Amino acid sequence: MKLTILGCHSATPTASTHPTAQILEIKGHLFLIDCGEGTQMQLRKYRVNFSRIRHIFISHLHGDHFFGLPGLISTFLLLGREAELHIYGPKGIKQAILLLLKLGKAYTNYPLYFHELEENTPQVIYEDDKVTVETIPLKHRVYTNGFLFKEKLEDRKLDVNAARNLNIDLSYYNKIKQGFDVKNKDGKLISNKDITFDPPAPKSYAFCSDTEYNPEMVPQIEGATVLYHESTFLDEHYHLAEKTKHSTAKEAAVIARKGEVGTLILGHYSGRYGKLELFRKEALEIFDNVELAEDGKSFQF
Amino acid sequence: MKLTILGCHSATPTASTHPTAQILEIKGHLFLIDCGEGTQMQLRKYRVNFSRIRHIFISHLHGDHFFGLPGLISTFLLLGREAELHIYGPKGIKQAILLLLKLGKAYTNYPLYFHELEENTPQVIYEDDKVTVETIPLKHRVYTNGFLFKEKLEDRKLDVNAARNLNIDLSYYNKIKQGFDVKNKDGKLISNKDITFDPPAPKSYAFCSDTEYNPEMVPQIEGATVLYHESTFLDEHYHLAEKTKHSTAKEAAVIARKGEVGTLILGHYSGRYGKLELFRKEALEIFDNVELAEDGKSFQF
Repeated sequence: MKLTILGCHSATPTASTHPTAQILEIKGHLFLIDCGEGTQMQLRKYRVNFSRIRHIFISHLHGDHFFGLPGLISTFLLLGREAELHIYGPKGIKQAILLLLKLGKAYTNYPLYFHELEENTPQVIYEDDKVTVETIPLKHRVYTNGFLFKEKLEDRKLDVNAARNLNIDLSYYNKIKQGFDVKNKDGKLISNKDITFDPPAPKSYAFCSDTEYNPEMVPQIEGATVLYHESTFLDEHYHLAEKTKHSTAKEAAVIARKGEVGTLILGHYSGRYGKLELFRKEALEIFDNVELAEDGKSFQF
Repeated sequence: MKLTILGCHSATPTASTHPTAQILEIKGHLFLIDCGEGTQMQLRKYRVNFSRIRHIFISHLHGDHFFGLPGLISTFLLLGREAELHIYGPKGIKQAILLLLKLGKAYTNYPLYFHELEENTPQVIYEDDKVTVETIPLKHRVYTNGFLFKEKLEDRKLDVNAARNLNIDLSYYNKIKQGFDVKNKDGKLISNKDITFDPPAPKSYAFCSDTEYNPEMVPQIEGATVLYHESTFLDEHYHLAEKTKHSTAKEAAVIARKGEVGTLILGHYSGRYGKLELFRKEALEIFDNVELAEDGKSFQF
């Protein structure tokens, strides 16, 4: 699982700070999470093979999470894309994108599917044999979802040498990977645990931005490998966080501690602070494993 | 008159090439012409005092000329703008912007006026005591206008010393600036040309992008101080220019020569060519005074 931060700053972008967008590589997928203005330039800058993106998840329809989407969709068109593209986002996103395309007489030449979200409880919005994606309902000034990306538990790993030594027929190998005990060629029952290894523990990534402090999400993100939680403000400005329905670094850390996640990544910083390290310092007082998102930075889990 | 190119590349932006946007400083105005994705970042990068922008002119509703507008309007909101903002662009622009603002519950706190264009003949769309702005109807795949920015002829400059020496009463000074002959205190008629200097010749800037080769614009741009004319392709790809309703550098130069403009600036380059100098070289075979637009470059006239 690899996470690349394309942008992690709040509100008004500048020449050097970009609004929210992330690429999550998970089980062969390249998922794009949010798409602030300039995301397509950032994808090129960090040499992401972005034609591989087939699923885009939009948390909410504030410009700094969404205004890069029309341009990216148009660029796919100009580059002659043929593969399907799926957009998951709040109700209204389809109307907006289709209106912009229509005004430019720029109908897509590839299949473009919208999956509009309007529920206030967690929903599985994508599933295949290797991963699931669920919404995490957040509390912000407009309808907003975080997203929980979960690997599925893989089959058990076959210990080929042990299976051979124990004289097991090849035709049983798939059954063994599924966890069954089997009989060998001599009719002896072989315990599954003697011929398999545990598969790697499934990993998960929870993306939570933008939101006010919202402990209701804790049961859902519990034990996540990585939690990205917005920290627009420091504790000294908690009243601004309350007013604008954002979180402080301290609040993000409390969520991480309650959820016993592996790593907390902070982001969505207000531009008012000089050093990002201040956010990490504040969160470290509550939670041990804190990383700072930075534009262009990658995390491997 | 100062022109700053924020972006001058066609179609799909990259990390280093930006879509169309320009700032024209003329008679105290800061006019923004087109607003491709990332324009607000370019405004910051080139340290344009962009709160001074009160008029934005959008040529057409293709993304590379327009997708930066929602973000800029939202940024003005977040920065607490109070001054009026006027948007001039094709019919449909108001519906698109208002829908995007509504989805983000981001109603503006400053007066935002839309001036939607749908005529196919030149129209004066802005006028004050110092400048006029006219549409230049262009021929492209969607409804498109160029814009002609013209300084008005200023009053004549008073030669104060001559007026004093000729014993003219102060109360006549305004009348003299307007070009009248006046009598002095001794009752003698003084010729206006003996007590005034010519005002500077009014300058003009014609912005023409995107368009196919369109000699119909020539009478309107005739004698312009500067013509910016798109040159998406080189002559070797004139069939692509025809097909996509764009121009070649050669065609841009033919328009400049027919219109006897002062300087031709080329831009809106396709990404397929290695060196921009190829565009200049091609145009110089037809027209003498050719400049190349480049992102971040300024021209003073």
